[in-house]
Amino acid sequence: MSCSADLFKAAFRHHPSGVAVITLESSAGPVALTASSVFSVSAEPPMLVFSVSHMASASKPLHEVDTLVVHLIATPQLDLAKLCAKHGADRFAGDVWTWARYESGEPYFEAPAVRLRCRIAQRVEAGASTLIVGEVLDVVIADDADDLAPLVYHDRAWHRLDDGSVL
Amino acid sequence: MSCSADLFKAAFRHHPSGVAVITLESSAGPVALTASSVFSVSAEPPMLVFSVSHMASASKPLHEVDTLVVHLIATPQLDLAKLCAKHGADRFAGDVWTWARYESGEPYFEAPAVRLRCRIAQRVEAGASTLIVGEVLDVVIADDADDLAPLVYHDRAWHRLDDGSVL
Repeated sequence: MSCSADLFKAAFRHHPSGVAVITLESSAGPVALTASSVFSVSAEPPMLVFSVSHMASASKPLHEVDTLVVHLIATPQLDLAKLCAKHGADRFAGDVWTWARYESGEPYFEAPAVRLRCRIAQRVEAGASTLIVGEVLDVVIADDADDLAPLVYHDRAWHRLDDGSVL
Repeated sequence: MSCSADLFKAAFRHHPSGVAVITLESSAGPVALTASSVFSVSAEPPMLVFSVSHMASASKPLHEVDTLVVHLIATPQLDLAKLCAKHGADRFAGDVWTWARYESGEPYFEAPAVRLRCRIAQRVEAGASTLIVGEVLDVVIADDADDLAPLVYHDRAWHRLDDGSVL
């Protein structure tokens, strides 16, 4: 009963998660990554956390910026989540997933119904990853957000929540 | 576009999560809580994180102990997750959810198919909650773990993942 990396990964294949796309402005231009590790930490003050592997290309930019945008992803944006998880893909070509900027400069994708602009409050090194704690500065929730089926990642597959999945 | 606690909560109602039950031995006996905020941080070394509100009864014990057990919860243990989320309920009455102890003393529930015993590596204060970073010491995965439908918490409801929910 010790814990190899393989055994640890096997355990977490039994743990579903929501899906988020995170964007930020690096010195080399806009950056986007997909994360299955976002959760709400505190409502007052509003804070969230996610983790990024030291191996991820977004790790260095995430150590340089002060602010970022977290998009909570529903099923209509599954392909955006896949795009932002794909090594080397151009996330900002703009042919399918149009993007814009906040007045404060952060890039964001227009399609996701929920997004939260955050100031990075803390970075915590934990093993081979960094925990990013974000204080939420402002929130946008689209009018149709409640109509979109939620997206779940589980064991390298994607699932849709709806009336058929509810217990 | 500022972020009130209500707006923040409304945003995260669009973010599903897996479900975990966490147990530990406090000076007053065994303690259990349900968390929808567990995620894997690093496979090598194996580390996970979750958050606990300062308002939770388990907050003080979590600041006192060195080790704890994280159970990843599938649908057959939904009632255990509900029990461990219920204020004032006796989680260890043992009439339905039998429990035991590791040789090292930590209490655990026998039914969940996946559990990870952890040493608390870091505690990080974040707003009205504490992030607990756990280094995984050992993992148990039951033989039938792959046969159990995963459980998801979303917008105050519980969902089951299966072939019907896969995209």
